[in-house]
Amino acid sequence: MEDSYSFAAGPAQMPNEVLVRIRDEMLNCRGSGQSILELPFTGAVYGAIAEQAEARLRQLVSIPESYRVLFLQGGAYAQFALVAMNLMGSTGRADYVETGHWSTRAIGEARRYGRVDVIASAEGNGFTRIPPWQTWCPNPEAAYCHITTNETADGLQYHWLPDPGGSPLVADMTSDFLTRPLAIERFGLIYASAQKNIGPAGLTIVIVRDDLLEQAQACTPGVFNYGIQAASHSRTNTPPTFAVYTAGLVFDWISAQGGLDTMARNSLQKSRLLYEAIDDTPAYSCPVERDCRSLSNVCFRLDNPKLVESFLEGAERHGLFNLRGHGARGGLRASLYNAMPVSGVERLVDYMKEFSSQHSSPKSLPII
Amino acid sequence: MEDSYSFAAGPAQMPNEVLVRIRDEMLNCRGSGQSILELPFTGAVYGAIAEQAEARLRQLVSIPESYRVLFLQGGAYAQFALVAMNLMGSTGRADYVETGHWSTRAIGEARRYGRVDVIASAEGNGFTRIPPWQTWCPNPEAAYCHITTNETADGLQYHWLPDPGGSPLVADMTSDFLTRPLAIERFGLIYASAQKNIGPAGLTIVIVRDDLLEQAQACTPGVFNYGIQAASHSRTNTPPTFAVYTAGLVFDWISAQGGLDTMARNSLQKSRLLYEAIDDTPAYSCPVERDCRSLSNVCFRLDNPKLVESFLEGAERHGLFNLRGHGARGGLRASLYNAMPVSGVERLVDYMKEFSSQHSSPKSLPII
Repeated sequence: MEDSYSFAAGPAQMPNEVLVRIRDEMLNCRGSGQSILELPFTGAVYGAIAEQAEARLRQLVSIPESYRVLFLQGGAYAQFALVAMNLMGSTGRADYVETGHWSTRAIGEARRYGRVDVIASAEGNGFTRIPPWQTWCPNPEAAYCHITTNETADGLQYHWLPDPGGSPLVADMTSDFLTRPLAIERFGLIYASAQKNIGPAGLTIVIVRDDLLEQAQACTPGVFNYGIQAASHSRTNTPPTFAVYTAGLVFDWISAQGGLDTMARNSLQKSRLLYEAIDDTPAYSCPVERDCRSLSNVCFRLDNPKLVESFLEGAERHGLFNLRGHGARGGLRASLYNAMPVSGVERLVDYMKEFSSQHSSPKSLPII
Repeated sequence: MEDSYSFAAGPAQMPNEVLVRIRDEMLNCRGSGQSILELPFTGAVYGAIAEQAEARLRQLVSIPESYRVLFLQGGAYAQFALVAMNLMGSTGRADYVETGHWSTRAIGEARRYGRVDVIASAEGNGFTRIPPWQTWCPNPEAAYCHITTNETADGLQYHWLPDPGGSPLVADMTSDFLTRPLAIERFGLIYASAQKNIGPAGLTIVIVRDDLLEQAQACTPGVFNYGIQAASHSRTNTPPTFAVYTAGLVFDWISAQGGLDTMARNSLQKSRLLYEAIDDTPAYSCPVERDCRSLSNVCFRLDNPKLVESFLEGAERHGLFNLRGHGARGGLRASLYNAMPVSGVERLVDYMKEFSSQHSSPKSLPII
C-alpha cells in the first residue's frame, strides 16, 4: 500500500516491485502459458526458477560450494525439532544458548531428541543482554552449538560471532537473514523461515555444510532429512513452488538494490533513527542494552503502559500498522526488514514525537 | 492458458476464475491495503480468511463438529511419518494396505515409528487391482488402518470403503479429495496435500476426529502435533497464509459450481470419455482392472512403448501438456482433477484417435 507501512514481525511488508511482478505473471509464468501455481515441480520451467533462485542466493550470501541450500516447509519452529533430529545423531547431545522467546522454544523442541545443555542464558537479565562470550561453557562432545542470531520477540541481536571450538555453530537466522553480510563458513548450519526477508510464509531455507548431512537420527521423516533433500535438490516431494518462485524474485530485488551491503547500510540507518527517537523522546524506553539491540526488530515500551492502545490507534490513523509487541512480551515493536523504506521509519518517528508531546506535556488549565 | 490444458498430477491446473481473483487482489487483499503475502497471521484480516476457508470446507464436505480441520505444511509425504508419530502412541502398531507407489512410501515412513502390518497388498497383481475386502486381515490392536484412496502414480482408486472394525480408518486422499462426496464419519483421519484439488503446493489439510488428538508419541515435533495445532486453530506457528487464502478461493469455486455432487458428476463424465477411448482405440491399453480404475489419474500405455516420446510431442503441439506417466511407473497419465474441463478431455481423445490412426494403419507404399 502506497500510503501505509506494516511493521509486522512476519508475514512482513514485501517490496512493491516484487508484488507487481507476481501480479503481472500470475496467469502466465515466464511465457509458459501456465500460472506459477500450476507448473509441475518436475518440469523445466519450475526447474529453472528453482535453480535461478538458489544461484542468486548463493551469489548474495557468497555460499561456498561445500554447503547445500535446502528449500523446505514447516517454518523455523519445525526446524527447532528437525535440527535436533538431523544433527544430534552423532553424539546425542547439543549445546544451546538462551537469549529470548524463540531460543527458549528451540531448546524445548530439541529436548525431545537428546541431551540439551544450556551453556549460557539471558534469562537472569530478563532477556535484555546477550550473555558475554566469556561466560559460555561449550561442551566438546556437543554435536553442535545452537544460537538465535536475532530474537524477534525480545529485540536482541548478536553483533559478534561465537566460536564454540570443536562443535559446529548452528543458527536460527529467521529474522536477520539477508539483512547483513554473512560469513557462512563460520557456521555448520543456518536456517530461516521466509516470511521476514525472503518471501511468503510456508518456506524455510536451510544452508548446511556437506559433512553434516549424514548424521540424522532414525526418527527423522524422509522429507525432513537434510541428506535426502540435498540429494534430490529439495525435490524429494513437491516443494512449495510459489514460495520458492517469490523468494527468487526477492533475491533479485535485493541484488538490484546493491546486495547485502546495501541492506546492512539501510538497516543501520533505519534502526538508528528509531532507537534515537526512543532514547531521546519522553514517554519511550528500550529495555535492551545498547550493544545487543536488534536492527531488525526494535522492541520498546511506553512509560505509561495504559497508553499502548491509544498509541496503536493513533499510529493506524497515520498509516502505521502492526506495531504491537509480541504476545508473550507486550509493549511495542517495529520490525524494520529489508522491504521497509526509510520513509516508513521517518513517519513513525514523527508520529512518536507527536504522541509524546501530546501525552507528556502538562495539561493546560481552563482559563476563567 | 486459454488454448492449452495441463494434465499434470500436481501442481495441477487451477480454475481460471481463481487465478484471476488472486491476480486482481495481489496488491490489496480484501480492502486491507496489503497483499495477502504481507498480512500478519495473527491479524483480523487473515483470521477471517482462514475461518471462511475452514467454514466453506466444512460445508462442502459436511464435516461433523467432532472433527478438527488442520492446515499444515510438509505435503502428504510428511504426513506418512506424522500420522504414525501422532497416532501410533496408543498401541505402537498399525495396519496398512499396499495398493501402489504412494501407499508403499507411506508404509516405509510409518515403519520408523512402530510396528506396521501390511494386511493386504496389490503387489502380487502388479498394482492393477485393490485387494478385495475379503482378503484383508485387520488387527484389533492396530492404532489405525491406513489406506490410500487413490493411487496417483498407478491409477487405482477405491470405489468402496473398508470397515476395519475396532481401529479407525485413516486415509491419504491427496489425489481424490473434493472430487466426490465423502462420508467423513467413516474415517478417524484423512489427509490431502493441496496441489491437486485444493490450491498451491505447500499446504496439507488434515481432518481428524477429536478422540485421536491426544495419542502422539514423544518424538512428534510441536508444530506437527495434531493436538497442539488443533488447540491453536492451526496457528501454533506461522501458517502458509497464501496457500490457505487460495484454498479458500478454490472451495468457493467448487461451491459455486454446485459442490461435490457436481465435481463427482464431472469426474465421472471426463474419466468415462477417456477410458472408453483407451479401451476402444487401437494402440492404447489400461493395465488397471475396470472396477478399480481411478477417475482422477488415468494411467494408460501405448502398445508400442517406443512411440511415447512421439505421442507426447504431438500432444504438446495440440496444447495437451504433462501427459507423461509417473517416473516410477512409465507410460502415460492424464490427471483429470476438478479444474480440468470436459473440453480438455475431448481434445485429448480426439488427439489420441488421430495419433492411433496415424500409427496403426498400414504404411502406404509409394506408387511406381
